[in-house]
Amino acid sequence: MTPHEPLSLSRKLLADHLLAGELRAGADIRLAVDQVLLEDATGTMAAMQFEMLGADSIGVPLAVVYIDHNVLQIDDKNMQDARYLQTFAARYGLRYSPPGHGISHYIHLEHFARPGTVLVGADSHTSMAGAVGSLAIGAGGLDVAVAMAGYGFDLVCPTVVGVELAGSLPAHASAKDVVLELLRRYDVRGGRGRVFEFYGEGVATLSTTARATICNMIVETGATTAIFPSDERTADWLTGQGRADDHRPLAADPGAGYDESLTIDLATIGALVALPHSPGNVHAAADLEAIDIVQVCVGSSVNSSYDDLATVAAILRGSQVHPSVQLTVTPGSRQILQAIIASGVYEELLTAGARMLEPICGPCVGIGQAPIKGAPSLRTFNRNFPGRSGTAEDAVFLCSPATAAASALAGRIVDPATVVIPPIRPASAAVPALHDEIITHALPADTRVGLEIERGPNLVAPPAPAPLAGTLSGEVLIVVGDDISTGDMAPDGAIAMSVWSNIEACARFMFQRLDPDFFDRARAAGGGFIVGGENYGQGSSREHAALIPLFLRVPAVVAKSYARIHRRNLINVGVVPLVLAPGQADVEVGVRWTIRDLRAAVASGSRAALAEADDGSTVELVIDLTPAERETVVAGGLLAQVRSGSRRPAPVLTTR
Amino acid sequence: MTPHEPLSLSRKLLADHLLAGELRAGADIRLAVDQVLLEDATGTMAAMQFEMLGADSIGVPLAVVYIDHNVLQIDDKNMQDARYLQTFAARYGLRYSPPGHGISHYIHLEHFARPGTVLVGADSHTSMAGAVGSLAIGAGGLDVAVAMAGYGFDLVCPTVVGVELAGSLPAHASAKDVVLELLRRYDVRGGRGRVFEFYGEGVATLSTTARATICNMIVETGATTAIFPSDERTADWLTGQGRADDHRPLAADPGAGYDESLTIDLATIGALVALPHSPGNVHAAADLEAIDIVQVCVGSSVNSSYDDLATVAAILRGSQVHPSVQLTVTPGSRQILQAIIASGVYEELLTAGARMLEPICGPCVGIGQAPIKGAPSLRTFNRNFPGRSGTAEDAVFLCSPATAAASALAGRIVDPATVVIPPIRPASAAVPALHDEIITHALPADTRVGLEIERGPNLVAPPAPAPLAGTLSGEVLIVVGDDISTGDMAPDGAIAMSVWSNIEACARFMFQRLDPDFFDRARAAGGGFIVGGENYGQGSSREHAALIPLFLRVPAVVAKSYARIHRRNLINVGVVPLVLAPGQADVEVGVRWTIRDLRAAVASGSRAALAEADDGSTVELVIDLTPAERETVVAGGLLAQVRSGSRRPAPVLTTR
Repeated sequence: MTPHEPLSLSRKLLADHLLAGELRAGADIRLAVDQVLLEDATGTMAAMQFEMLGADSIGVPLAVVYIDHNVLQIDDKNMQDARYLQTFAARYGLRYSPPGHGISHYIHLEHFARPGTVLVGADSHTSMAGAVGSLAIGAGGLDVAVAMAGYGFDLVCPTVVGVELAGSLPAHASAKDVVLELLRRYDVRGGRGRVFEFYGEGVATLSTTARATICNMIVETGATTAIFPSDERTADWLTGQGRADDHRPLAADPGAGYDESLTIDLATIGALVALPHSPGNVHAAADLEAIDIVQVCVGSSVNSSYDDLATVAAILRGSQVHPSVQLTVTPGSRQILQAIIASGVYEELLTAGARMLEPICGPCVGIGQAPIKGAPSLRTFNRNFPGRSGTAEDAVFLCSPATAAASALAGRIVDPATVVIPPIRPASAAVPALHDEIITHALPADTRVGLEIERGPNLVAPPAPAPLAGTLSGEVLIVVGDDISTGDMAPDGAIAMSVWSNIEACARFMFQRLDPDFFDRARAAGGGFIVGGENYGQGSSREHAALIPLFLRVPAVVAKSYARIHRRNLINVGVVPLVLAPGQADVEVGVRWTIRDLRAAVASGSRAALAEADDGSTVELVIDLTPAERETVVAGGLLAQVRSGSRRPAPVLTTR
Repeated sequence: MTPHEPLSLSRKLLADHLLAGELRAGADIRLAVDQVLLEDATGTMAAMQFEMLGADSIGVPLAVVYIDHNVLQIDDKNMQDARYLQTFAARYGLRYSPPGHGISHYIHLEHFARPGTVLVGADSHTSMAGAVGSLAIGAGGLDVAVAMAGYGFDLVCPTVVGVELAGSLPAHASAKDVVLELLRRYDVRGGRGRVFEFYGEGVATLSTTARATICNMIVETGATTAIFPSDERTADWLTGQGRADDHRPLAADPGAGYDESLTIDLATIGALVALPHSPGNVHAAADLEAIDIVQVCVGSSVNSSYDDLATVAAILRGSQVHPSVQLTVTPGSRQILQAIIASGVYEELLTAGARMLEPICGPCVGIGQAPIKGAPSLRTFNRNFPGRSGTAEDAVFLCSPATAAASALAGRIVDPATVVIPPIRPASAAVPALHDEIITHALPADTRVGLEIERGPNLVAPPAPAPLAGTLSGEVLIVVGDDISTGDMAPDGAIAMSVWSNIEACARFMFQRLDPDFFDRARAAGGGFIVGGENYGQGSSREHAALIPLFLRVPAVVAKSYARIHRRNLINVGVVPLVLAPGQADVEVGVRWTIRDLRAAVASGSRAALAEADDGSTVELVIDLTPAERETVVAGGLLAQVRSGSRRPAPVLTTR
């Protein structure tokens, strides 16, 4: 990279925030962090680990914690979590968004996301803020805690994919269909190690929340994040939010080169649907019209913007939802809720028979509205991993708001190209100042010291790893297939998620859908190995999926390949993510493995390791770790590494 | 009672519907039934028993099933229940109100409740329809199923209490405070066997929904029901609902005598609060102002009317809820929701920081918003039995909307007499036709035969009792105190209530709060006796509290006294509700009892029985059953009795 080379927007932002490392795909880099996002599901664990770091205050210009997942409060645990995070925020200087105020990603876009910043969030869909030209990356709770404490954010430098958007969308298609098209092309693994950067004349045809939908859901390809330029529409968005001063125009340099490139002609996009059980299982809506549905859910951190809900309302206008269908609608934030009320969209939805839910994550993570086993449920959400709806044997289809609305009327999947899409009701002016006010402001630093943090019995600090042992041994506890998501390790749903502040309690749910005996077997064996397939640990950033193996004394996972965040979470808690070398025989559950001198191999930079089985056979393994990752693993995880003083705090950025 | 004696309204309605028996307090009577109300929590069991009766259609002019309890859908069971009830309704001719449309009692008041009718509902708060001069009585599911099949409704003829209302309420007091004043006077047992009939000049000062609040919550005194005259305000209410034709003026005859009488001067009523853990534990709000609160919940089947929510909004207007308080607001129905949106009340609540929940029962039965253990939660609900909130060791206070709103701003209990109560926003015109349309109409009878009922695995038919044994024996499994509610037998909450369609699954929760080992001990013992105190089985009508003992092979309960509905539920499933004679020694758990020749004693009309303990001691028991009840018990319950053909169908009433 020469100084005069025209740069992509991604590279500019990376360079602008680079604290250490070289901007070369695959290299270890460390970035300065402007903003941190926490939510309650992953946030309690991140906050407890922040406390273990011993910092006296946040070390970034802005950190916000949003209570948006565990808000049904089916027993007393959710409120304990919320009060812990509220008092934690008061003590350390975070802003606090109370339950019911909205989904983190929407509120962050409304009030905080800014062009040119780096945002790190303990939620995989943090990428959504890329809609306004923020480099926004989801990570595990410990990575976020370390960043929030002011040590910067470590990652492997991504490849930049330039996506040129041409033309404009037809009336029956939307941003959701664009990202489903990307998923059709890349599936759930093809985007790994990549930032998708959008440019071209089609960009200007997409609203900020449409861009947000694409940035949010890009992570289903395995991507690190996505980013749009900051342009006139961005300026309009920020001005509408009373934040005109936060705008700065940002784009790739003319003629910027990309590591990879593709073009999408928006005019060719039609309605697409992802079939069970993968966001990458994408087909044309027109080919699915024989499928009867029992439920339609609109909302989640994609497709609960004003325009999304107004589109649904326009299609439902004057009609009634099919009597066999339960339709729920979830606005993204209290501000959106107020906007749809003011414009009449809410009343159109209500009188059509929609159930209007609170602005929370809700059904998207199985917190309510779990469907009947096997009965098709059509949702505008971002994921349909098996069981994510709260029903183990679910059948969830993902689609756009227009497809959802047309289908809700018909009681079966309908291509919205076959229906008339009336004009949406225009939005009235919003009142962002009021909605900002509900998000508690950070207290002045000198008033925070000594504030008591309310710590209910549901809050249990996570286990701490020991330094990596020289030789690892144990039995293979389970062998799972490809694309297993972190939702199979720490499942979604109101019941399972209510104990996410307590790893021992979470552990009982690990792999429950795949093997109900896993927990008992792992405990009886006193630990052992987990063997996975390709893209092991895709999906959510929940570090519980790594902390549970740590708790169960799993010293290493062996998989064909990994998803980015889960791989890093394993490293952060000192569990070695080993790779199965190509061409190995199938591994059997119960076989006993010894991996000799692994610590020395990791420390020395060696890429080879060998699992010797008790039957005399061997399995070749690859130690595919960067130098920085090797240091973390050998040290016994990131927390030990930071506490040992080996990592210097990053300079606190002035607010950009 | 002579023909020319001036009659109370209650007596007129009883006489008008009398099918059998004599209108004398304490006598067995049978009433013809105009309307039947089911909800989903108790309704699945009622519907399965209806199916066991073998009827081909409902045998009453109107039956409606409302899905209003189990709607969070934290797993796939709730939707199974809803789809069972939807297809059951289609098959047998009920109307069906889908999830999210509102709370049964509010919707029934809006669309169906009519002066001069008899309504029987499988929900204790069915009494609410008394607000429009309907004789509305809550009952167990089997009683309701039998009534719905056209056999009439059996009950013990109540005493009529005339309550003269004088004057009018001060601005800071409301109907909720009136019924709390009645609870202060009567506590939770004093109303048993009574109908409270309101009359006098103060009646005209109360709106229909204010009257509804009083009728709803009167059952907390143990009363059978309450009733108001049908007057000009009733006419206005029905006209506003597009039901002017449903109005008929109804009142007690001038000079009508009452079995008991009292007078309440409304002008003297102040803000009252029921403290944990009884609706009868009533104190002046002014005496409680030091109590800090963490949660305020507005709504439930009391206090979620337009006026209630508008009062809360007026007090919150321009202010923000205290940051330590989580405030939730639940409208009573979709119609009320639409009305508060149209008038601006919704927006006032939203911008003050309230969480706006769906129009469902919700937090009132612990389906969401379970508070932190021991932390005061202030609620406008009707019950605060321990654990009803979903948190076993909760601390729930009951109050009026004005008290709730003033307290939500202050973060502590506040007497609304100390704050300014601004005028409420006037309601805009509602659109009842639309809201009626969402409630599925009954299909024509000839199209219903053969319709398939969708029966998921969560739907398990209840056990059937055997005829009463001659001699009963077994050990005493548990001894509980006074005023134990049915909520301790079949607990509230999203988790416990999700299995209310399966008695075996429910059984694991029986007495869990009082004695976590009860279920295992009862199973190990192969059955035995339950010993209770005064007012055993107060509260909810849930017959699960009787079906679980049947399942656990409990042939008889022995208590000092019983609440009406639970006592009848025990009889209906063939479990004998015996009474402990005064002056008996305390009973010990584990003692083995034999009650000889009980069947013969019951059949013969004898009032005396004796429990002989294995240590040689004896306990004197009273068989306090009416002649009709004795027949039911000896037959092995109501289902067997009806199926044997011993009970003739009642004439189907023409719609009144």
